Amino acid sequence: MDFSSRIIEQAVNEFARFPGIGKKTALRLVLHLIKQNEQDIRSLSGAIIALKEQLKFCSECGNVSDEEVCNICKDKRRDSKLMCLVEDMRDVMAIENTSQYRGLYHILGGLISPIDGIGPEDLNISGLEERLKKNEVEEVILALSATMEGDTTGFYLARKLKAMGIKVSSLSRGIAIGGELEYADEITLGRSIASRVPYE
Amino acid sequence: MDFSSRIIEQAVNEFARFPGIGKKTALRLVLHLIKQNEQDIRSLSGAIIALKEQLKFCSECGNVSDEEVCNICKDKRRDSKLMCLVEDMRDVMAIENTSQYRGLYHILGGLISPIDGIGPEDLNISGLEERLKKNEVEEVILALSATMEGDTTGFYLARKLKAMGIKVSSLSRGIAIGGELEYADEITLGRSIASRVPYE
Repeated sequence: MDFSSRIIEQAVNEFARFPGIGKKTALRLVLHLIKQNEQDIRSLSGAIIALKEQLKFCSECGNVSDEEVCNICKDKRRDSKLMCLVEDMRDVMAIENTSQYRGLYHILGGLISPIDGIGPEDLNISGLEERLKKNEVEEVILALSATMEGDTTGFYLARKLKAMGIKVSSLSRGIAIGGELEYADEITLGRSIASRVPYE
Repeated sequence: MDFSSRIIEQAVNEFARFPGIGKKTALRLVLHLIKQNEQDIRSLSGAIIALKEQLKFCSECGNVSDEEVCNICKDKRRDSKLMCLVEDMRDVMAIENTSQYRGLYHILGGLISPIDGIGPEDLNISGLEERLKKNEVEEVILALSATMEGDTTGFYLARKLKAMGIKVSSLSRGIAIGGELEYADEITLGRSIASRVPYE
């Protein structure tokens, strides 16, 4: 693409580095910005800089936080015997939205993925072990994606945690609520037959 | 959504102001940014600020430009008797990519849209009239979108330009090259019958 302006080109290239944003979408975003007033532009660029300069990570669970310890870790009403292992903060938000979980979290910051060169040492696992040693956690729930990376990470952690004498569980897999059988993929359907549960 | 961090929330809100980007996509972009290093962040925010501080608009055609007059207007080899009216710089890029047009451009900066409160006075039309007066333009091509706004703007401008004694033409409308009849919408198909051309 020929942008007739180096400044536009630079901005488009910056936006095109976001995952899922190509050059055409990036150009659409840049053209939108051009039409904004100076205050809007400053407020966007300020918010971006703040992500790097002001954002903290909770020293306990590793979730993003504005303070040293996040609101969930600080909350004394939560069940400190239960800990949920997740990949990133989006998973925390998703689980919190269910209102079904009142335990603590621990954010791994990624999943083991040999193909991307991500090993256990790149995840927040040493922090997890320290936390488990000093806390009274009895059960750890592996709330990881049902992908190869999620399964690999789960397998690795389950072995490690069981060796520490902690009960390990994982999210149930199966047909989604409201899901129709004919549209379920074969692997999910096969697994939901293998792991069938007694009728209540 | 509860973001557990005011800084994240602020950044998500800023990104969600882009057209076509909702809160979920905005969060995905923000999480991507968190993982970047400081230099990448500064380079993105710098590119955004530059859009406001350094970007100029060509004093002739109104296209974005790094200089006072853009490369197309400066190019003496282009046909200065022909001028193409477009909505914005994306249209210039699209037409330049065809390599079929060697005339000049004029960017309106929008289309007449009473529903959005955009009237002729909001477009770069006074600049167009001045240019037409001092230049030797003989034909103006209306290269506007085939929407109600494009048609309204075209109708308004065609009357104005004809009164100035300038030949006005418009892009041909019809079945797209490679398009199959059965998938063409009724209005396009109907119009392509009405405006049929002699077989070459």
